[in-house]
Amino acid sequence: MARVIVDVMLKPEILDPQGQAVVGACGRLGFSGIEQVRQGKRFEVEVEGEADEARLEEVRRLAETLLANPVIEDFELRVAE
Amino acid sequence: MARVIVDVMLKPEILDPQGQAVVGACGRLGFSGIEQVRQGKRFEVEVEGEADEARLEEVRRLAETLLANPVIEDFELRVAE
Repeated sequence: MARVIVDVMLKPEILDPQGQAVVGACGRLGFSGIEQVRQGKRFEVEVEGEADEARLEEVRRLAETLLANPVIEDFELRVAE
Repeated sequence: MARVIVDVMLKPEILDPQGQAVVGACGRLGFSGIEQVRQGKRFEVEVEGEADEARLEEVRRLAETLLANPVIEDFELRVAE
């Protein structure tokens, strides 16, 4: 069994109201050094067997079709140690 | 300016219905090798100046109070390259 991490973030040009809300709250709560926050999703995907090229390709297709919306989001895959 | 990544995941003993929904959909969509999925949040926090120990401590307090719910979630910080 191997674990693949999929990070999904809004594309840089897409407005992120959740992140902006966090920045606004930082000001009110006294966190002074926070300039920008962007919020995304993180998936831990446990796959059968080894995380070989075929398995990673399957996770990549899963990310494209189910985990991320490629119109507005970018995603990155990596194998967890 | 430095960028700190905060990964927030449900504690292992907490049920994750979002992740289970993804696993269920995997079966229906023909992704055969996916055994478990857990969904969490990922924050990219841009901070003023360097990501020194004091700044990281501030982000840690931010994560505890605003980004994560420490009752049900664990979080990890790392400085982005």
